[in-house]
Amino acid sequence: MKRFAKTATAATLGAALIVTAAWAESHSEKALEDAVKARHAQMQLVSYHMGVLGATAKGEIPFDSAMIDAAAQNVAAMAGLSRATLWLEGSEQGFVEGSRAKTEIWSDAAGFGAKFEDMQTASMALVGAQDAAAVGAGMGALGQSCKACHETYRGPKN
Amino acid sequence: MKRFAKTATAATLGAALIVTAAWAESHSEKALEDAVKARHAQMQLVSYHMGVLGATAKGEIPFDSAMIDAAAQNVAAMAGLSRATLWLEGSEQGFVEGSRAKTEIWSDAAGFGAKFEDMQTASMALVGAQDAAAVGAGMGALGQSCKACHETYRGPKN
Repeated sequence: MKRFAKTATAATLGAALIVTAAWAESHSEKALEDAVKARHAQMQLVSYHMGVLGATAKGEIPFDSAMIDAAAQNVAAMAGLSRATLWLEGSEQGFVEGSRAKTEIWSDAAGFGAKFEDMQTASMALVGAQDAAAVGAGMGALGQSCKACHETYRGPKN
Repeated sequence: MKRFAKTATAATLGAALIVTAAWAESHSEKALEDAVKARHAQMQLVSYHMGVLGATAKGEIPFDSAMIDAAAQNVAAMAGLSRATLWLEGSEQGFVEGSRAKTEIWSDAAGFGAKFEDMQTASMALVGAQDAAAVGAGMGALGQSCKACHETYRGPKN
């Protein structure tokens, strides 16, 4: 797998990210692969908790406010993870196995971050939901935040 | 895989956990397996970030304060995840494939929670570390918090 041409990219992103690029350059291919696996673990935790919320909304499992609050808070915690260690430059789709990250993640870092903020807001709005219908209603915005980010920043299936 | 005898256990834990036990009982075997996988994703994210901290402490990668802060904050976020959805009763070692969770997690829930608080304190203490030596020094307490929890609440390798 060919490494990403960091020099040209860093130049377009300014001084702040050059530090990160230098850090990433010092990393092995394995470090980039580990970052991708860590992101997948992050997404798995999101998916697991979305499953709890979704099953409640559909009435497949009984409404339990403690579980809903926990699921919503944990999705928000995933959205709030610091991206510096997870989205290492050079770990985009085509360069690291399993990655579906588009280069827009780095060329539009502010936009990418805003999507996680939307996700955090939508998930925290579910805390305190009083019944399954409220969970279902809140999941609309949450699901939309997932979709909006994936559409812009996630590449096709590998 | 045999399901855990929740009734007897819930009786020892009081009313608060009976709600959770009822919730877990309504779940399929798959839900318990998904919870175990989600916990493993949580641990993988801890492990990944410990790797970043450890490699910095050893001088294998250059010290980068943004990366150290991010790694420490992300470990703290993992320690701070709500446990209600992740540590479902009935998902202990011997009952769900891959689980190494000991029953003490449920019979001593307060003690288990305190270990995560220790982990969170130790990881947040690394935020703002000024050099690799400071990272190494702070990792002592962090590693100790991992070890202390594993010794009491994690069973032998499967």
